[in-house]
Amino acid sequence: MARPIVTLTTDFGTSDAFVGAMKGVILGINPNAVIVDLTHDIPPQDVSSAAFVFATALPSFPADTIHVIVVDPGVGSGRLPIGVRGPCGLFVCPDNGLLSYVLDTSDTTLTKLPEGWSAYHLTDERYWRQPLSNTFHGRDIFAPVAGHLSLGVAPEHMGSRIDSVLTFPVPRPVKANGVLTGRVIHVDRFGSLVTNIKGDQVSMDATVSISARPIAGLSQIYQADEALLAIVGSSGYVEIAVPNGSAAMELGAGVGDEVSVRLR
Amino acid sequence: MARPIVTLTTDFGTSDAFVGAMKGVILGINPNAVIVDLTHDIPPQDVSSAAFVFATALPSFPADTIHVIVVDPGVGSGRLPIGVRGPCGLFVCPDNGLLSYVLDTSDTTLTKLPEGWSAYHLTDERYWRQPLSNTFHGRDIFAPVAGHLSLGVAPEHMGSRIDSVLTFPVPRPVKANGVLTGRVIHVDRFGSLVTNIKGDQVSMDATVSISARPIAGLSQIYQADEALLAIVGSSGYVEIAVPNGSAAMELGAGVGDEVSVRLR
Amino acid sequence: MARPIVTLTTDFGTSDAFVGAMKGVILGINPNAVIVDLTHDIPPQDVSSAAFVFATALPSFPADTIHVIVVDPGVGSGRLPIGVRGPCGLFVCPDNGLLSYVLDTSDTTLTKLPEGWSAYHLTDERYWRQPLSNTFHGRDIFAPVAGHLSLGVAPEHMGSRIDSVLTFPVPRPVKANGVLTGRVIHVDRFGSLVTNIKGDQVSMDATVSISARPIAGLSQIYQADEALLAIVGSSGYVEIAVPNGSAAMELGAGVGDEVSVRLR
Repeated sequence: MARPIVTLTTDFGTSDAFVGAMKGVILGINPNAVIVDLTHDIPPQDVSSAAFVFATALPSFPADTIHVIVVDPGVGSGRLPIGVRGPCGLFVCPDNGLLSYVLDTSDTTLTKLPEGWSAYHLTDERYWRQPLSNTFHGRDIFAPVAGHLSLGVAPEHMGSRIDSVLTFPVPRPVKANGVLTGRVIHVDRFGSLVTNIKGDQVSMDATVSISARPIAGLSQIYQADEALLAIVGSSGYVEIAVPNGSAAMELGAGVGDEVSVRLR
Repeated sequence: MARPIVTLTTDFGTSDAFVGAMKGVILGINPNAVIVDLTHDIPPQDVSSAAFVFATALPSFPADTIHVIVVDPGVGSGRLPIGVRGPCGLFVCPDNGLLSYVLDTSDTTLTKLPEGWSAYHLTDERYWRQPLSNTFHGRDIFAPVAGHLSLGVAPEHMGSRIDSVLTFPVPRPVKANGVLTGRVIHVDRFGSLVTNIKGDQVSMDATVSISARPIAGLSQIYQADEALLAIVGSSGYVEIAVPNGSAAMELGAGVGDEVSVRLR
Repeated sequence: MARPIVTLTTDFGTSDAFVGAMKGVILGINPNAVIVDLTHDIPPQDVSSAAFVFATALPSFPADTIHVIVVDPGVGSGRLPIGVRGPCGLFVCPDNGLLSYVLDTSDTTLTKLPEGWSAYHLTDERYWRQPLSNTFHGRDIFAPVAGHLSLGVAPEHMGSRIDSVLTFPVPRPVKANGVLTGRVIHVDRFGSLVTNIKGDQVSMDATVSISARPIAGLSQIYQADEALLAIVGSSGYVEIAVPNGSAAMELGAGVGDEVSVRLR
């Protein structure tokens, strides 16, 4: 039997031992789990950023991977811990919108799960760590649940089925007068500005504008002789980049800034 | 046989390949070891911080876990490399106080190990990497010793038994005139101020004061509508937190600052 | 059969999920691979730094380890993806100089591989992830190639043999008038200044100078009572260090700065 993969995405940082504690709990339940860090540097409480970054990594993992996502401003409050099964993975997280990019949701609060998906409110405390703290469900609920899932326990046994999960509307570009207007939804490590405009929405000869700087046509590669370029990045979104530099720094631009594409 | 877990806690950071080198040595000895990073972001040479952060993660690991802790300002000098066995794990580290929080010590220099514990001065160079450097015992002594421990070699075979280990006195709150006075011993990733006051030392309706700001009663959860709250954190200590913000930033407070609790 | 080790060295940082995506691809191909992070904090596009830091960790790994190094300013352009086999490991990287320190090269562009080494231009797309992006060969070429290598596929099957790899000349100290003049090639986490002068090039009583500060003799250990010292570091190079402090900060020194040793 293949060793089960468990990924972790959190805002816990790496200077405390929060993430280590989660791993201890998972491995204490299943020493054969292969634990993979996606990132722990999500800005504190930034559910939207976690939802996006997580979704960019998801397609690289086998469909039977267990994904634990813990950005949890409501820890200890009424928000539900959930387990969700879909065609692309098993997900364990608080019910607060973390799956919005995965589900590509348009709704402000509740999204009914599509065909092929099922979700469970995690209520069975036998699969939790005891005593349960009010402040660290990553260690006390999500990690042990992931450990048990990795042993083959079905989420059906861990709680009661629910039809919908909480979501936020994924920001979508708007088309008007031959112009597609989107915005920057992520700035990556290299200072590239990732927009919410999908590469298949624009033609390679389109003009992309940001901060009143027009860029004529999309590049195929990070051409070192270009000062500023637009390119379809590795997750399929149009990105604004400065080769061997930082577009974010050079343009003074960041998340939320407007990007427009003149369509032909 | 379950795969042995080896945790690493260091001040080596993640921008050099120091930690990678340690993992190479461990896996070269035992490719079946499961290596878990607790943190490598301990401030350089900060034995006290390492001792605390490590102790917060320890209870999440199985009792047969091997814990390597390397914050080692005296590397290459006379300080002893030690292996310690206790009811909650096997520990490999320089003998410089790193186990003080685990042992909950009150002594300034030497603490005699309690019942159920044993310690060994690591002297047998057959279990070390050769040639031995003077500057990187993490790679050359502690990692290979952990590798051999993970294969089942007993620490008895690696050196000579010692009765005591070097410790520092864990800072304890002081009770006087109905007031318990402690201090901040750690600031976590979220800017929460972790004190040395245990949750079971105070009642939920106690008033907690820091920087002349009184907080009436302890909260059960990070209530978003509270500007500043006191809560028993995930390691059992009273913490001062600002929900969705940073108490450290807001109060301009940090390690060493006084926190008092009026007892009822 | 021992579980195959795959190391990763990149400039991808840890705040995006780039590294996580690479691990997902490798584990999707070989769930038994043991993946080890060397570092992901190489400064963006800094091939020279990556080449050095990687080389410091290499000797700590078994000779059958697969090393993936991705610092790739030319991603998507004409630069070749290569697989290289040597007596100390298997290497997967863009052909842009990343192996210069491992091969200890003196040539500006092409270095013919020494006896016992072989290299392959990776061309067989069956071992790549599809569809291939132009911006993330770490995920789409290097990770899947490493996954297949870890399953035992020989690099011979993945492309065509080449005789030489691209290199930069490793900076070497210059000897003149009884003085060896080198320079700082790396600043480590502790602020120590790592030079390109090998420990076996100087005697222990030599005088080492940096920023017009002479240091009389090399130290055996980080002696806490020394304000500034020179020592042979864990990778065999002479380092300038401030015990419990940062030589880089104290001297205002960094990569490229001159260091001289008066020989006896």
